[in-house]
Amino acid sequence: MARDPKYDILFEPLKVGPKTLPNRFFQSAHCNGAGSDRPGFQAHFRAMKAEGGWGAVSTEYCSIAPESDDTHRVSARLWDEGDVANLSLMCDMIHEQGSLAAVEIWHGGPNACGMESRVPARGASQIGSPFAFMRACKEMDRNDIREVQQLYVNACKRARDAGFDVLTIYYAHTEALLHQFLLPFFNRRTDEYGGSFENRVRFGREVLELVREAVGDDCAISVRFGIDTLELPFGLGDRGIRQDGEGLQFIEYMDELVDMWDLNVGNAVEWGEDAAPSRTHPENHERPNVYKAKEHTKKPVMNVGRFTNPDTMVDVIRSGQADIIGAARPSISDPFLPKKIEEGRLDDIRECIGCNVCISRWEIGGPPLVCTQNATSGEEFRRGWHPEKFTQAANPDNDVLVVGAGPAGMECAMVLGKRGMRRVHLVDAAEEIGGHMRWVPKLPGLGEWARVVNYRRIQLDKLKNVEVITGSRLDAQGVLDYGAEILVIASGSGWSTYGLQGITNEPMPGPDASPAHLVIAEQLRVEGKPGGK
Amino acid sequence: MARDPKYDILFEPLKVGPKTLPNRFFQSAHCNGAGSDRPGFQAHFRAMKAEGGWGAVSTEYCSIAPESDDTHRVSARLWDEGDVANLSLMCDMIHEQGSLAAVEIWHGGPNACGMESRVPARGASQIGSPFAFMRACKEMDRNDIREVQQLYVNACKRARDAGFDVLTIYYAHTEALLHQFLLPFFNRRTDEYGGSFENRVRFGREVLELVREAVGDDCAISVRFGIDTLELPFGLGDRGIRQDGEGLQFIEYMDELVDMWDLNVGNAVEWGEDAAPSRTHPENHERPNVYKAKEHTKKPVMNVGRFTNPDTMVDVIRSGQADIIGAARPSISDPFLPKKIEEGRLDDIRECIGCNVCISRWEIGGPPLVCTQNATSGEEFRRGWHPEKFTQAANPDNDVLVVGAGPAGMECAMVLGKRGMRRVHLVDAAEEIGGHMRWVPKLPGLGEWARVVNYRRIQLDKLKNVEVITGSRLDAQGVLDYGAEILVIASGSGWSTYGLQGITNEPMPGPDASPAHLVIAEQLRVEGKPGGK
Repeated sequence: MARDPKYDILFEPLKVGPKTLPNRFFQSAHCNGAGSDRPGFQAHFRAMKAEGGWGAVSTEYCSIAPESDDTHRVSARLWDEGDVANLSLMCDMIHEQGSLAAVEIWHGGPNACGMESRVPARGASQIGSPFAFMRACKEMDRNDIREVQQLYVNACKRARDAGFDVLTIYYAHTEALLHQFLLPFFNRRTDEYGGSFENRVRFGREVLELVREAVGDDCAISVRFGIDTLELPFGLGDRGIRQDGEGLQFIEYMDELVDMWDLNVGNAVEWGEDAAPSRTHPENHERPNVYKAKEHTKKPVMNVGRFTNPDTMVDVIRSGQADIIGAARPSISDPFLPKKIEEGRLDDIRECIGCNVCISRWEIGGPPLVCTQNATSGEEFRRGWHPEKFTQAANPDNDVLVVGAGPAGMECAMVLGKRGMRRVHLVDAAEEIGGHMRWVPKLPGLGEWARVVNYRRIQLDKLKNVEVITGSRLDAQGVLDYGAEILVIASGSGWSTYGLQGITNEPMPGPDASPAHLVIAEQLRVEGKPGGK
Repeated sequence: MARDPKYDILFEPLKVGPKTLPNRFFQSAHCNGAGSDRPGFQAHFRAMKAEGGWGAVSTEYCSIAPESDDTHRVSARLWDEGDVANLSLMCDMIHEQGSLAAVEIWHGGPNACGMESRVPARGASQIGSPFAFMRACKEMDRNDIREVQQLYVNACKRARDAGFDVLTIYYAHTEALLHQFLLPFFNRRTDEYGGSFENRVRFGREVLELVREAVGDDCAISVRFGIDTLELPFGLGDRGIRQDGEGLQFIEYMDELVDMWDLNVGNAVEWGEDAAPSRTHPENHERPNVYKAKEHTKKPVMNVGRFTNPDTMVDVIRSGQADIIGAARPSISDPFLPKKIEEGRLDDIRECIGCNVCISRWEIGGPPLVCTQNATSGEEFRRGWHPEKFTQAANPDNDVLVVGAGPAGMECAMVLGKRGMRRVHLVDAAEEIGGHMRWVPKLPGLGEWARVVNYRRIQLDKLKNVEVITGSRLDAQGVLDYGAEILVIASGSGWSTYGLQGITNEPMPGPDASPAHLVIAEQLRVEGKPGGK
């Protein structure tokens, strides 16, 4: 099927400095737990998105030197030639797909924990990190400033040597030293690097000048800029910047040094607002805080905002909000999102539900990400899993009975169908498939979670070898009588109604959900028990 | 200098199953952040202790299979031949020193997070982990029990192949599946693996029988057993075991299958009580809960308890409390503790202060450990640092002025002295060296922290090229006039007295330490400000 012409604009190439972005889809920097030390995981994870049509694919935040070591968390690194070798695999595999490889160049100031390198932190002013474990920093003197600027240059040269096309200079989320210099929240300096706007931006401007001079002919320079740090009390207020103020002023002042703008919003401590969950924030939620930028720049602009709807994407571009559709979570949930739009297969899009389980892994530290919607995410290399291509099963001449059509049962039946089993019967006692995902999306703010069911219902409908049977409760004898050669039990679990106390690991006498004035979500939604007051 | 004969007993060899422990010093299992994936760090870190005289040196907890994956934390692993190769380096280097290599064989049940392997957990009963992130488990059926027992056997064979002499079967801390089967807190089974003592111990007994049969001729089998899970409300009470009860009963029941006992105490969630800080627990603090074991076993017994005093160690053995001195933290603080006792250099012992900064790193997850007392800890491989041997400086024909005799200045002057600088002057404005460590140890419970100063004072006294000058405050001109070729500023920091609020990163109006009724520790101890009521 060909794509709808109204989406053509999403597939127009775009010149970005010395490079050409083949379409308007850019996987913005996001963590995955791979870093530079798991090059196979990193390369195959990112290249899957290039295969799925993303015109540019980025690493996560990439540390430029040991003093910006974020261990226990996992960042990419460009500390030495070993890192260059490791990350070059990712670049090569992305280039094979015709996409651009991007890297996010990062120095964290005091927000980098330094727990592996043990190197003390340097920062704009001597202020403890609001984020890292017990981490303060030395206020940088002029020698420090020159040294750290050289660290940026050295890392950017390594990035070029590794094969990266786009160097995204990290200037956002209060997580980046460059942003910290700009924000009065961090910058209390009284020298030429503090005080006035021009002074607070000086450090970053010098970095950009040096980087352009070093690698600007070879690489596109993107700046990931936190243009609005939001209002008090959640944001930084006067201690930060707003779009209508230093945000747009910054765009104009730095525009000549930049090949593209990667814009987002941030709050006091790292990126909670930028990666806001669907529970509280709709698609394109950053629009009010970023939409004015395009009038103040001659360079292409990228926005993010959990974009999964191609109509929204078109509107973003046509309305003059941005030129490039950035995405992190939607690209995890569906690495083939661009290709599915291109091929007119909109109903095959596996939309991100905004649950943020991916992000929760980074908050823990080192473990690889997981995705509620895309079970293959993170397993591209180790297990050779592919989100769209399924190998024929070794034992296809069997019937499979899957008991329970919740998320696990739906996924199981769908994958077995795609792997070519003779017949797959997905049976559920309820009248609808979905298991607990029938009622969870009815809870306040969780509407987008229904996508877990919707995507799989459509896929199951398309599979001729899968039959979905609802309203049929099977007991053990019923399962045996069914006659399938292979049985999968996916009958799920329910919420405990009695609590569990920590001392004995026993149910708590008293605090259970039987009294009329107490109710748990499942009772409310499934059993129809009235809520208490 | 020869050792005092009263310590001879600490150096008597001891037969442990098919192996001979060359002396009574056993570095019990403890984490360091190396695992199996950083074999150089692991091997050099552990081998340093063998060089320092520890008769046996263990890995940290070592996972037997992917279902017991503790990522984001770093355990050792014996999942496959790659792990065997990686850990064999540690064994080889320990053997070169004439010591035994030990490994702690671990399956965590639901307490292993599984965040890298993604394998679901199996456990004694279907109860959520009190410790891991959102981790529940499947109650093991008989097939599961046989499979998991085979995982133990397979890992123990790999351990033997890697070169380990002592296999410590982890049966403690509620962190180990074997312990969980024993404890009613976790085990609610009604089959032959739950209920009575014999039933709850059946799973572990079968594991030990299988392991002995597989590798018992080649390796010594140690059991690290949590003999007392303490009383309510801090401990497990009736949901756990006590020494006078199933603790000693267990010792008698399993004794024939065990070559040595590695005993400790535990509480509801992992090992907080076992690794208790000096602030609350003195040396040999576990004695009341473990001392009866020796009367109930024919096998050697090991205890731990932050042992740093050789007289305590002798008393432990002579009093019939234990045969082997186990230690984790004291061996980090001073890898050469045994050798210093052997050589009669007691005043050179760098005693652990029980601050638990080492343990705090594991609580965070993956980062390598650090030690307040031993700056070389964790840097044996990467930087080639040695806690006792110092290479001659490249520029010894210089005088060094170190300004400030706090912990950093003392360490710096000491190391520069040992590295052979011509003259090192350590100058402090106060009448005593130690910096803030002069008064911190006077705070309640922090007496042992004075060891930071005491160790360095003794070392500095011994160095002919180091002069300590107190009561001398140097300003910039004074430093210049001093005439040293090399200057080190280590003048320290103080506690903020005004607070810092999160919204503005500015001092908080009002909450400062100037009013008479408010006092911070430094005012109290250094300035003599009276405490409030």
